[in-house]
Amino acid sequence: MMPSSPDRAVTHPVKLENDLMLRALRGESVERVPVWMMRQAGRTLPEYREVRERAGGFKDLLFHPEWAAEVTVQPVDAYGVDAAILFSDILVVPEAMGLSYELVEKVGPRFGRTIRSASDLASLHPIDPHKDLDYVMSAIEHILGALHGRVPLIGFAGAPWTIFCYMVEGKGSKDWTLARRMLWEEPALADALLGQIAAATTAYLRAQIEAGVHVVQLFDSWAGSLSHSLYVTRILPHLHSILEGLGGRVPVTVFAKGGGHFLQDLMTLPCTALGLDWQTDRSMARSLAESAPGGPKVLQGNLDPSVLYAQPGIIRAETHRMLDEFGMTRTIANLGHGLYPDIPADHGRAFVEAVKSYPTNTRETTTTA
Amino acid sequence: MMPSSPDRAVTHPVKLENDLMLRALRGESVERVPVWMMRQAGRTLPEYREVRERAGGFKDLLFHPEWAAEVTVQPVDAYGVDAAILFSDILVVPEAMGLSYELVEKVGPRFGRTIRSASDLASLHPIDPHKDLDYVMSAIEHILGALHGRVPLIGFAGAPWTIFCYMVEGKGSKDWTLARRMLWEEPALADALLGQIAAATTAYLRAQIEAGVHVVQLFDSWAGSLSHSLYVTRILPHLHSILEGLGGRVPVTVFAKGGGHFLQDLMTLPCTALGLDWQTDRSMARSLAESAPGGPKVLQGNLDPSVLYAQPGIIRAETHRMLDEFGMTRTIANLGHGLYPDIPADHGRAFVEAVKSYPTNTRETTTTA
Repeated sequence: MMPSSPDRAVTHPVKLENDLMLRALRGESVERVPVWMMRQAGRTLPEYREVRERAGGFKDLLFHPEWAAEVTVQPVDAYGVDAAILFSDILVVPEAMGLSYELVEKVGPRFGRTIRSASDLASLHPIDPHKDLDYVMSAIEHILGALHGRVPLIGFAGAPWTIFCYMVEGKGSKDWTLARRMLWEEPALADALLGQIAAATTAYLRAQIEAGVHVVQLFDSWAGSLSHSLYVTRILPHLHSILEGLGGRVPVTVFAKGGGHFLQDLMTLPCTALGLDWQTDRSMARSLAESAPGGPKVLQGNLDPSVLYAQPGIIRAETHRMLDEFGMTRTIANLGHGLYPDIPADHGRAFVEAVKSYPTNTRETTTTA
Repeated sequence: MMPSSPDRAVTHPVKLENDLMLRALRGESVERVPVWMMRQAGRTLPEYREVRERAGGFKDLLFHPEWAAEVTVQPVDAYGVDAAILFSDILVVPEAMGLSYELVEKVGPRFGRTIRSASDLASLHPIDPHKDLDYVMSAIEHILGALHGRVPLIGFAGAPWTIFCYMVEGKGSKDWTLARRMLWEEPALADALLGQIAAATTAYLRAQIEAGVHVVQLFDSWAGSLSHSLYVTRILPHLHSILEGLGGRVPVTVFAKGGGHFLQDLMTLPCTALGLDWQTDRSMARSLAESAPGGPKVLQGNLDPSVLYAQPGIIRAETHRMLDEFGMTRTIANLGHGLYPDIPADHGRAFVEAVKSYPTNTRETTTTA
């Protein structure tokens, strides 16, 4: 179900109390840098573990909009972050396309089937998000009701290469050699699969936007497994196609983990912001972002999540150093990857507090020149 | 057992027939670029699988010098490479220090104990390579006998951070969060462990050099898990200490996989060459290497190993493109990581042939200017 006028800006019925993140995404100067944390909803919080216990399995949590809403909102209270992110899983898209999976405790995802041939590919189908992923749309509705405008809600999906990896391999992998093998051995098949994933992802994210998310993020968790030239020639066109399909209705962030070696090419994407991992040099990224072909881009990231194992004083110093390097404008403070499950909740709070206590008056931003 | 005059150059009793790699490491101009492949000895070769079958387990292969020698020499015939690399495992060093391990088929290494506390650390002991790793020294002797000067022999060890990861975690990990946690949570303990690993590694590599290896390589397989600042402040000093302990007696290559983001700092190490992964930009690396503080460095790498899944025509084109970008001087052709086990041996040969057939007369090197 496509909206009749896809390129109009979305109007949200409830006015946001805290729109810091949206203002930063528009490039406005802000009184302080907005902050949220990837995987902020999850095992670091005792209140999450309690709901998870009640739900049974992780996927039960996803399938029940009330529970998904509850854990989505928890970190807004627990950490004081400036945005909530939909509690879901990137693998719901391949599942909606026809590949069901289980999440095995301490092991990871396991798909019953994989895509290795043209006939495997033919077994997939286009998705109707309102039918195949109605439980996500319902979760968004519940979350927006529960948030009641306190902070914006971020929707998300996996990026085509990362979803491709799981659909070809059927489970996690260190090197993704089966997926990378297909890129070289069967380029047409690989491209067709990537195209189908991109189409499903576009439909899914459009539905999330229609349902009311304020921002969306694409997660390319396994971008780092590809060379610069392979990513640019074979993957980037599919990201372009998704972004064009979203028509700029809400700000979009692309997070290509391990993709620092092709950051310059990511800057050519028609997206609002780029997420950075902790391996990416901040000053270099800022300089590329300010001269991006379509106008300056916002940067989101990128504290090494392992810093949150340190004492609060060190967390504060490292966070302030990060903000010194990023500057205040067009910056969204985050980690360089998700919170690790064994990071104490107090240390997550120390990070958020460090961003909030950053002494804005005494710092120059790097983007004033 | 330390040699009485550690800094004298090693004299090898047998003159090399093919010293191309050593000449490239000295920065001499060469008639063609030397080539070898990480993991060239292994499951890609049927003749390896045959010896492995005979040996029983992987570790039985390591412990029997005749078998280790046989599989070390195989790729010289099978692929026509310009160097052999000792068939061994980086984890023999932590084992010699007191942590024994098993290699579980399809799972990976499993240590019986780990290092998480000062008392764990106190249980480790300095190594005497001639006693604790005598089987490696014996393998080197057998290999040199079997090679009889056909090509140089490369010795190797794991770099301190990578060995630390295994000693702390006790097995492989996606994110190495326990190891990274220790860096932040118990810096003194972490540094003491890294120091003990560096000392053991220095002793081990000195013994390999005494036994006659022509070149040594340090593998930092998990370098990419650390931020630039953490690597430079906490890990690099231990690499320095090893390199100083080796006293420049043979050329040393440092391969920090995933370490493209701190390549400029690796250039300050007193080593001869740097290994590059397939994510690292060749022109940028060459430019840094030519202006390295201690004089120009040799570069080794860095074809994406997944290219070897492609047809030979593509393998040739991608390899020639790599050599165009690296130039002919101070270059050792290799992959950006080890051969994957399911790469057909014919495709490994196509890579080696592509390096050998690179049309040197019609190309300019990038380093003549």
